[in-house]
Amino acid sequence: MTVLISIHCCPLPIKSASFSRMTSTSYFYIWHCMCICLGLACVVTVSLWSSQWRGGFAWDGSSLQFNWHPVLMVTGMLVLYGNGAVLYRVPLTWGQNKLPWKLLHAVVMLISLILSVIGLCAVFGNHNAANIPNLYSLHSWIGIATVALFATQWAAGMVVFLLPCSPGPLRKLLKPQHVWFGGSLLTLSIAACISGINEKLFFVLKGNVNGSKPYSQLPAEALLGNSLGVLIIAFGLVVIKILTNHEWQRPENPSVDMSYTPLLQEENQ
Amino acid sequence: MTVLISIHCCPLPIKSASFSRMTSTSYFYIWHCMCICLGLACVVTVSLWSSQWRGGFAWDGSSLQFNWHPVLMVTGMLVLYGNGAVLYRVPLTWGQNKLPWKLLHAVVMLISLILSVIGLCAVFGNHNAANIPNLYSLHSWIGIATVALFATQWAAGMVVFLLPCSPGPLRKLLKPQHVWFGGSLLTLSIAACISGINEKLFFVLKGNVNGSKPYSQLPAEALLGNSLGVLIIAFGLVVIKILTNHEWQRPENPSVDMSYTPLLQEENQ
Repeated sequence: MTVLISIHCCPLPIKSASFSRMTSTSYFYIWHCMCICLGLACVVTVSLWSSQWRGGFAWDGSSLQFNWHPVLMVTGMLVLYGNGAVLYRVPLTWGQNKLPWKLLHAVVMLISLILSVIGLCAVFGNHNAANIPNLYSLHSWIGIATVALFATQWAAGMVVFLLPCSPGPLRKLLKPQHVWFGGSLLTLSIAACISGINEKLFFVLKGNVNGSKPYSQLPAEALLGNSLGVLIIAFGLVVIKILTNHEWQRPENPSVDMSYTPLLQEENQ
Repeated sequence: MTVLISIHCCPLPIKSASFSRMTSTSYFYIWHCMCICLGLACVVTVSLWSSQWRGGFAWDGSSLQFNWHPVLMVTGMLVLYGNGAVLYRVPLTWGQNKLPWKLLHAVVMLISLILSVIGLCAVFGNHNAANIPNLYSLHSWIGIATVALFATQWAAGMVVFLLPCSPGPLRKLLKPQHVWFGGSLLTLSIAACISGINEKLFFVLKGNVNGSKPYSQLPAEALLGNSLGVLIIAFGLVVIKILTNHEWQRPENPSVDMSYTPLLQEENQ
């Protein structure tokens, strides 16, 4: 069967498409900039909370060891994770071989996973030293499940998308599941962070200790903790926005219809 | 410019595409069934918790009034909301005029919003009667922001997508934002639910009252509350899966390439 498609030769739609691409790319970089700034703001705020309001850091089983927990979970399981997830969306990378970006994605996610595991060790060590039971609260259930599922996702991603012997059809079949599950882990991470901050503020801001105010009277530490929660939500929504915008997805065939084509090399899908 | 595209006339790809469509539709209904079942499980579990473990319901400012809060928020701001969000994804509706489904989407979301507002009134009434401050915890900040943003999203959706005078280009421009913001509200709702359940379990399971066990010893009520949290997470991930699968999105032009075409009518985009 032969199909005839007649396209009017007019420079206007081409210019219009090019303008639309430029606008879309500019919007991407605005959102990506927000993603980086909000991520940094989350890391600075949680570090400030642990260092200035909770007494700083140590690795001796004390509450100072616990202080590593929020810093490492927010930095690893949220900020690095979110930035690693949106790596492929950067239009500057679309004209380049995908393999180095895949490796960078895997390395960023591995660092994120390692920080998260150290963050879990920090809280287990503190709980064990103080005879506090582990893994009973809903926060801890969600948190441990998130890290365990993240480790599974990372290992499966390595085997399916990075090993050269992995068959192409399997990659094609599992890619949407990998993307969906990656986004789902971000939602789990947000829920774990919010419930953890909420729980910690109720634990430490009981009031009547050295004349300090309880959580319900919103002392400065409560405002800082709540603000950290708001920043985490804002960061998460920006990452979800970047991940779900179809226009910002790396084209399957980057040799066609692209803004950036510095070095077209063979694709590693 | 004339472009010639030659397509080999072979029944195999057509059969293959049809088979692929059937498989995709079957998978959709499996996920949709999970969505409905998990939603029902959430409503049953939260109702059981409030009615059997927390003493039942009343509207007298007591803790029995508070008990409406988790039931109405989980039912309204999560389960009804999630089911309302995936309405357009049901392939059975694709061949039909979009307007009745738009109206149903708006009505389900309105009921969801009304239940959420009543759920907020329940907790404000209880707090005011017991002289407990309102809106200080991170859970309450996230919760009130979610409902306020949901109300804004519903009103904006009504004006942009349902009023006949709303211009087509504006609808096209704002549709992706409406979809992204709707998904984001689900993430906020999950974070609010998880932090709320975690907070409530720490509040009520202090132990040493009539020989009851504290949260840390995981009594039956703690297991029920934590299980509710796990069900909420599972429900949320299923809804996100349905919303983010491109194959399950209602086609822009439903007259082409569809499984269900009982009554093709003019589209109301």
